[in-house]
Amino acid sequence: MKPALDTAFAHTHLDVLLAAIPLAQTMQITVRDYDGDALTLAAPLAPNINDKGCAFGGSLASATTLAGWGLIALRLKALDMNCEIYVQDSTIRYLAPVWGDLIATARLDEGESWDDFLAALNARGRGRLRTRCRVAGEGDAQACTLDARFVAIRHAK
Amino acid sequence: MKPALDTAFAHTHLDVLLAAIPLAQTMQITVRDYDGDALTLAAPLAPNINDKGCAFGGSLASATTLAGWGLIALRLKALDMNCEIYVQDSTIRYLAPVWGDLIATARLDEGESWDDFLAALNARGRGRLRTRCRVAGEGDAQACTLDARFVAIRHAK
Repeated sequence: MKPALDTAFAHTHLDVLLAAIPLAQTMQITVRDYDGDALTLAAPLAPNINDKGCAFGGSLASATTLAGWGLIALRLKALDMNCEIYVQDSTIRYLAPVWGDLIATARLDEGESWDDFLAALNARGRGRLRTRCRVAGEGDAQACTLDARFVAIRHAK
Repeated sequence: MKPALDTAFAHTHLDVLLAAIPLAQTMQITVRDYDGDALTLAAPLAPNINDKGCAFGGSLASATTLAGWGLIALRLKALDMNCEIYVQDSTIRYLAPVWGDLIATARLDEGESWDDFLAALNARGRGRLRTRCRVAGEGDAQACTLDARFVAIRHAK
């Protein structure tokens, strides 16, 4: 039976991976929400401030990159595919300062498809995906966006 | 008398700013070298590992962004110009895993000039600069590059 792609699944599998990254632990970053198509990670402001008292750019870059990485890691985990996932490159835009919790939501970028990614991974042992991550700002505004490319490489059996 | 733009100056002024950012403290990031045109920051691997045991992408993004930011902050400090410096956007390329110290060197990007930046800052209270930062890899190879745009905004007297 396939596991449900839900927040409980994400807590079970992704919080363990985040715990293996010391800086993510210091950031206190954890799963907030997951439904298979979108993954939201959250971290409190206090351990993530800069010299001005708002969110440190490095924390925003870390949280958004981890959200994209986690989105892919959870999908592959649900399919029981044993892969390493690497970020290749990313572009981040800092649009407004963040004065509260860091809340980062990642989805596949437009035009990207799980089916194509999984087909490539099955055929060649390697697949690529672009994700888009947004950090919520005041009201409906975005505080930060990250577009990132990842590669997943399947382990030999 | 103008201060010398050297490593001692960078230790005096930048290590204090880095100490005001909790995550930079956790990363143990400090000034390694400075000559006015290039700033090198360094951090040990241990607090910056990912789940694979090499450098965490978020640490590389943080170190490279701080190197660009610090390069500008030190120049403005030497000129006694009281500004806030914000990163606007950046593109990072992860070229090879880093299995040792994180060593990030930032310079102005090609075509950028301190004179133009300072002229804009003096004329309009605001100036923009692009920096390029490289993280050393094995031998002569680069492990990571970050191109970043910053804006400096002068405080009212």
